[in-house]
Amino acid sequence: MRTGADLAAIRERKPLVHQITNYVVMNETANATLALGALPVMAHAKEEVEEMASVAGALVLNIGTLSEHWIEAMLLAAKAANRAGVPVVLDPVGAGATTLRTETARRILSDTEVAVVRGNAAEVATLAGREAEIRGVELIGAGDSGAELGTAAAAALGCVAAVTGPVDHVSDGRRVIAVANGHALLGTVSGTGCMATAITGCFLAVAPDRPLEAAAEALVAFGIAGEEASRGAKGPGTFHAALYDALYNLDPATIDDRARVDES
Amino acid sequence: MRTGADLAAIRERKPLVHQITNYVVMNETANATLALGALPVMAHAKEEVEEMASVAGALVLNIGTLSEHWIEAMLLAAKAANRAGVPVVLDPVGAGATTLRTETARRILSDTEVAVVRGNAAEVATLAGREAEIRGVELIGAGDSGAELGTAAAAALGCVAAVTGPVDHVSDGRRVIAVANGHALLGTVSGTGCMATAITGCFLAVAPDRPLEAAAEALVAFGIAGEEASRGAKGPGTFHAALYDALYNLDPATIDDRARVDES
Amino acid sequence: MRTGADLAAIRERKPLVHQITNYVVMNETANATLALGALPVMAHAKEEVEEMASVAGALVLNIGTLSEHWIEAMLLAAKAANRAGVPVVLDPVGAGATTLRTETARRILSDTEVAVVRGNAAEVATLAGREAEIRGVELIGAGDSGAELGTAAAAALGCVAAVTGPVDHVSDGRRVIAVANGHALLGTVSGTGCMATAITGCFLAVAPDRPLEAAAEALVAFGIAGEEASRGAKGPGTFHAALYDALYNLDPATIDDRARVDES
Repeated sequence: MRTGADLAAIRERKPLVHQITNYVVMNETANATLALGALPVMAHAKEEVEEMASVAGALVLNIGTLSEHWIEAMLLAAKAANRAGVPVVLDPVGAGATTLRTETARRILSDTEVAVVRGNAAEVATLAGREAEIRGVELIGAGDSGAELGTAAAAALGCVAAVTGPVDHVSDGRRVIAVANGHALLGTVSGTGCMATAITGCFLAVAPDRPLEAAAEALVAFGIAGEEASRGAKGPGTFHAALYDALYNLDPATIDDRARVDES
Repeated sequence: MRTGADLAAIRERKPLVHQITNYVVMNETANATLALGALPVMAHAKEEVEEMASVAGALVLNIGTLSEHWIEAMLLAAKAANRAGVPVVLDPVGAGATTLRTETARRILSDTEVAVVRGNAAEVATLAGREAEIRGVELIGAGDSGAELGTAAAAALGCVAAVTGPVDHVSDGRRVIAVANGHALLGTVSGTGCMATAITGCFLAVAPDRPLEAAAEALVAFGIAGEEASRGAKGPGTFHAALYDALYNLDPATIDDRARVDES
Repeated sequence: MRTGADLAAIRERKPLVHQITNYVVMNETANATLALGALPVMAHAKEEVEEMASVAGALVLNIGTLSEHWIEAMLLAAKAANRAGVPVVLDPVGAGATTLRTETARRILSDTEVAVVRGNAAEVATLAGREAEIRGVELIGAGDSGAELGTAAAAALGCVAAVTGPVDHVSDGRRVIAVANGHALLGTVSGTGCMATAITGCFLAVAPDRPLEAAAEALVAFGIAGEEASRGAKGPGTFHAALYDALYNLDPATIDDRARVDES
């Protein structure tokens, strides 16, 4: 893992990260992407997603507020990204909560090449056919440990699985990287999971041939930003504002020293 | 009224609050819901709203940015909520400003069972057939006093009416509870009315059989959070961030002592 | 230019500024409008945009996240605004990045009367048929100087062109006003360009017969707010919150003294 070097590359190259994401977090993921140092762009019209995705550094799909046209646009964009060699990240928000979400996430995974799936344990377990309990878009419980789930999901889905929680587990089916960076206040702000996915897209854009590392590096970077933002925060609101400051001020020279990573 | 006990119940049970709301405030109402202690979920596709609404603790409908598909989804969701015994809150944003909004709010009220309507005086007056002047989504003036309007609207609409303003008035057509908590800075941030409606959904989810009290308690809690957030705020931006902190830090043990409530 | 007097007029008259804008920044432009002192309203349904636009003080069109229905709504709203004498501002977000965006911006400009186009150099250059390079929605480079581009674009498009950058250039094809207010942190927050457009709408609403001045005054006011917000900001998040405070606290009595304006 080389989080600092990849972060420096993001800031130097400013990759375009095309996001087709939910209405709730669009501003938040755009701002997280920009604060980190990449260029966000949101475009969801069927008429333009292929054109945009094919020139992007990464494509981020997030199913948090679906509807028919958006599903079609996501599939078109992912196929265009695949043709152009642009890596695709999927955030299966609420998979397991409704049939539409579960089926849409499965359809994207089966019809296109996804490099990384980033979700909570219940969402990833649902897609991998493991036991999980979800309520709305929040995890209640999952049967597997994070490491087991990550490995099983990566194997079942044929891509890198990034399962986030108090400790994150990222696996390509063989290796598992555990990331312990982060802070409890991240769970009090809506859309921090979606931001983690957007940042995964940023790292993938500069390391498309190392999706396992890119996904783990993104969670290290985002987790450290969360730790930093928690200092002096008085609650979710001031924490949220400080989180963008922290992403912007992440230091490539010291970030690797602060990574709390364990590979098994 | 038992605001503290109901707030404690929200934090313990973490009810799912399904919101079909406008694009402008989705992030804000999700974060207000989460900061208070409940679980927000946004879903608007016709394919999934019935599934989501029927497992929710409350359904919040907000007509702030309408279009045809969303209207259909709101009606489907409300009917599913009614069948499942899930209470429905309606925020008639801009009723009176355009025909589409007035008619949509009326259609929701006539075709489904709404537990609480939360709006400003002009919106509620429009729906209740009283005099009002509205510009865009902002109240200019209403003919009735808040207490008169609340009572008349509750009687006319057959549900609890929560009319917010410098002093809020909540009525079921017989009782009227006046809530004087709040702060002028709430009027400087877009979507604080929508947040009040989302929080009404949170309280209704734990007190579905006491809609009058639940609606008044929500306005007490939100008003006290506004008072708390105003301390040290330098304007709408820092106030907005502090508002989530304040919702998160509301203390069930002392909130009833701070309620400025008058029942007539 | 009379920025202070026009700001005072905005706060006194509270013009309704109807915005059909992108999903990413709706909350941000609504809050910027409200913090400045005007009344924002968002409405995009074909069934209501004509009714809303015709009673507004200004109409703001922003193509940041397009789709078919929204394009139709923008055209309907702009034509209704034209019939009612309501000034229209266009923000051609991402013109040059995809065919859909370029063609939509051109169509709005050819089919309706636009008072002011506010964009970055690449977007405006694209519409004016000049050289530019754009990536996503971010400017990479433009062939002309800002002053040349502003003048040429205003002449080509037949309206006021407000080209923003480190120094902004506003032209009606003959006069060019350069505005040097602003701060580098504005470039680290998503949607600040869209906010500048919304604020242009606010000033146009009180000075519809002076579009050149109104557009320049808006950039002065927004730039000074950016300067003010940068004090004590630790990054994009705290800057963003402070920006609304600064817009709210802009002082009509001193703002003209702080304007860094040069007319050539």
